Amino acid sequence: MKAIDINCDMGEGFGAYAMGSDTEMLNIASTANLACGYHGGDPMIMSTICKAALSRGVAVGAHPGYPDLWGFGRREIPFSREERKQLVAYQIGALAAVAKLAGHRITHVKAHGALGHLVADNEEAAADFAEVIAGIDSSLRLSVMAGSLLEKAGIAAGLQVAREIYVDRAYTEEGRLLPRSQPGAVIHDAEVAMERVANMVAEGCIITQSGKRIPVEIDTVCVHGDSPGAVPMAKAVRKRLVRDGWTIQPYAGR
Amino acid sequence: MKAIDINCDMGEGFGAYAMGSDTEMLNIASTANLACGYHGGDPMIMSTICKAALSRGVAVGAHPGYPDLWGFGRREIPFSREERKQLVAYQIGALAAVAKLAGHRITHVKAHGALGHLVADNEEAAADFAEVIAGIDSSLRLSVMAGSLLEKAGIAAGLQVAREIYVDRAYTEEGRLLPRSQPGAVIHDAEVAMERVANMVAEGCIITQSGKRIPVEIDTVCVHGDSPGAVPMAKAVRKRLVRDGWTIQPYAGR
Amino acid sequence: MKAIDINCDMGEGFGAYAMGSDTEMLNIASTANLACGYHGGDPMIMSTICKAALSRGVAVGAHPGYPDLWGFGRREIPFSREERKQLVAYQIGALAAVAKLAGHRITHVKAHGALGHLVADNEEAAADFAEVIAGIDSSLRLSVMAGSLLEKAGIAAGLQVAREIYVDRAYTEEGRLLPRSQPGAVIHDAEVAMERVANMVAEGCIITQSGKRIPVEIDTVCVHGDSPGAVPMAKAVRKRLVRDGWTIQPYAGR
Amino acid sequence: MKAIDINCDMGEGFGAYAMGSDTEMLNIASTANLACGYHGGDPMIMSTICKAALSRGVAVGAHPGYPDLWGFGRREIPFSREERKQLVAYQIGALAAVAKLAGHRITHVKAHGALGHLVADNEEAAADFAEVIAGIDSSLRLSVMAGSLLEKAGIAAGLQVAREIYVDRAYTEEGRLLPRSQPGAVIHDAEVAMERVANMVAEGCIITQSGKRIPVEIDTVCVHGDSPGAVPMAKAVRKRLVRDGWTIQPYAGR
Repeated sequence: MKAIDINCDMGEGFGAYAMGSDTEMLNIASTANLACGYHGGDPMIMSTICKAALSRGVAVGAHPGYPDLWGFGRREIPFSREERKQLVAYQIGALAAVAKLAGHRITHVKAHGALGHLVADNEEAAADFAEVIAGIDSSLRLSVMAGSLLEKAGIAAGLQVAREIYVDRAYTEEGRLLPRSQPGAVIHDAEVAMERVANMVAEGCIITQSGKRIPVEIDTVCVHGDSPGAVPMAKAVRKRLVRDGWTIQPYAGR
Repeated sequence: MKAIDINCDMGEGFGAYAMGSDTEMLNIASTANLACGYHGGDPMIMSTICKAALSRGVAVGAHPGYPDLWGFGRREIPFSREERKQLVAYQIGALAAVAKLAGHRITHVKAHGALGHLVADNEEAAADFAEVIAGIDSSLRLSVMAGSLLEKAGIAAGLQVAREIYVDRAYTEEGRLLPRSQPGAVIHDAEVAMERVANMVAEGCIITQSGKRIPVEIDTVCVHGDSPGAVPMAKAVRKRLVRDGWTIQPYAGR
Repeated sequence: MKAIDINCDMGEGFGAYAMGSDTEMLNIASTANLACGYHGGDPMIMSTICKAALSRGVAVGAHPGYPDLWGFGRREIPFSREERKQLVAYQIGALAAVAKLAGHRITHVKAHGALGHLVADNEEAAADFAEVIAGIDSSLRLSVMAGSLLEKAGIAAGLQVAREIYVDRAYTEEGRLLPRSQPGAVIHDAEVAMERVANMVAEGCIITQSGKRIPVEIDTVCVHGDSPGAVPMAKAVRKRLVRDGWTIQPYAGR
Repeated sequence: MKAIDINCDMGEGFGAYAMGSDTEMLNIASTANLACGYHGGDPMIMSTICKAALSRGVAVGAHPGYPDLWGFGRREIPFSREERKQLVAYQIGALAAVAKLAGHRITHVKAHGALGHLVADNEEAAADFAEVIAGIDSSLRLSVMAGSLLEKAGIAAGLQVAREIYVDRAYTEEGRLLPRSQPGAVIHDAEVAMERVANMVAEGCIITQSGKRIPVEIDTVCVHGDSPGAVPMAKAVRKRLVRDGWTIQPYAGR
């Protein structure tokens, strides 16, 4: 059986504020990365999504970010290494307990926003991040960009990694994400996105802007639900993967 | 061997702000109730105290409060039952992970401030509080005032309880704390406090203002470190209990 | 010339979070009540709306609330009188400076959420609220429910008041808002709302559920933009008032 | 009459948390720079100090910082220029209103922590900062390090500047503060500090580590109250300046 995971960031609202289309995405994704109250999310939202995810067989994991609700975790704040480690541990634990109380359990950790950029690119920060996760619960998977430095750091820390590709982002010839400032960085056409993802998953490779193939292991496909076009694109991707014979299921299930 | 625990709230600072005398109290108490970032505390302080507690054989537990740093968790904010449950779960989990990363583990939960008053007095809130703890980890002990409604709620939820008496607070004839607004509510004389605690522990009873004895189980003695006179009083109490033949150790150790 | 004001709460988003339909409402209302960073709003949103309001001839005023972003200012937090006074002053000043920098100026103050309910119903809190405004700038108008206790408190404090009626809320026979828990408390039919408002404004009275008329002074009509049906209703009300010969303009302009 | 000002940061506590020795410093300094709720301070503390300052003839001004209570405003957070401008305006206005309500008035603005470092060193940020102040109230003075880039920016924006020297910090041969990482950067000996300040003020110059004199205008001497040795040093400096014939008074008074 060919199985693949579809993951999506969820629970990024706060109190009366909504963000994204959690209800719809819970029917599309098999894995939810949940904000943990620092860049978004609050205990109620965390609990509500854990319960909804459990009832739909959707896996949940922690999506820790910087404590910067105003900046939605997108500002690179110069925390010390120790501060960064502890604020990650704090958020993982917070969600773990809320999930437990909801009858669910967390399966993985994926860094958000500026923290995500840092741990993807910085060797020291990547190692720290992996070690924090391993130190809390070595059965947690670490979500990484397929082929990234963080993938190596996770493996070095003894973690299982969940290697992901992005549905709506173009890749450079080196297999990195094309910066958003570049033309064509974000793919808006659902057809194009769907076709490219189907090929990447089938061939086990990243497809760059020029069409070059870079072989990688792929465990999960990252979709978004926070813009009007994102939900239909995610739906189309799921439909196509199913048509191609893939079973959509959480990576922890394999 | 006669063993008794001494517990103290710690880690209630925030960033550059100090609160209490954590360093000294870690040498006096055998159990630390750690603020979890909502009414006080931050991930760094939580981690630092967990490490220091571990090296001194001091047990740590969660001291959750309302998300009200400005009010230090002392304002009664009308959260819904569900909100209250989730914000407690959040904080317990956050500390559990930070403690784990520090090589330590949490052993108990004690409610702070306005939350503490609510769960001590309100049957529904007490039951909710106990159920949250049991739902997260039924091996966690629930800290309760000896003889309180919360003691019963904890036992009903299947939890082990840690029954505490207060070093510096007078008791009414019903065995409740005399409200701070009443004269004599707070005991400032270390000699008086020391003598009274020694008797309460020796006799297994609460001693009321009039000298009446109310039999209770006593697992732990609550001391404070957040005022100038509190530290010497806590030291005196410890010294006296040791002189009386008590071994001072965390309740989870017995 | 017959002139009337239409006011609407705006700027209640926070960072990446949106709330309401500020862009549309700036074309419907003549007065904007702006969140000041405590229950919602941030310095950027405050500035952006001040600039947009200035360019459209829309007046701006402070809409202070409790410091409770998670609860959107809807939880009644038991602040002391002094705390409440100072947190109101803080927010008014913050918006005044941001508006000034944007080339605009604030003309009024309207309390939000739980703070709004408190000052509407509680004599002491109403007097405090009015005195804070008068103490900061006695030329600021105080927005009040027409016929309310706060109207009297404002006048007693020497303030000009802006007496408002609500487009979408039913009134009791005593001229108070019917609690939301009661059937019919919120009017969802734009036609009904429009007709009722037109009559209230024309006759200078509140129209109760039974159709009874209670004479009041009316300076402004309060519309909402934070639900899907609210924007069309607000548009309909404006259109009707214009058709009836009213000039829609800020109360400070009269 | 020879007059000089002594300024000190105050009101940097938060709720139950104390910071510094505000009560003592109000008897030493003639000008207080008050935290405005972002890196420290809250509306109650702001109001309390405004009242106390008024009764002692101490001038108050805004000491805006980044919205980073955890980091006490010391982390350089990459705000956009526009965000930085608005968050400064917000804080100035907040204090202005609280001071007004207390019967006092703000006379100046001095940037705190990481924001202070940025506007001291960065031409664009310095110009923005000065323009925000001028845009809100051009009668506000801008506190600057004597001889700094910010001094020029303030003058260019049409503001009066208050040029300060530091009691406890060594100066490089270029007249800049020696970084704290360098040996001798902070002066701990009250005698040395006192002597140096007396000479700098008398001669109208900065005295560098080597003893070189750099002529500058000096309006105010910056003292600290947030460490045990700081208060006696500040007292000693004041005493010496008085002995030397200086009248200690707010710069706005001259």
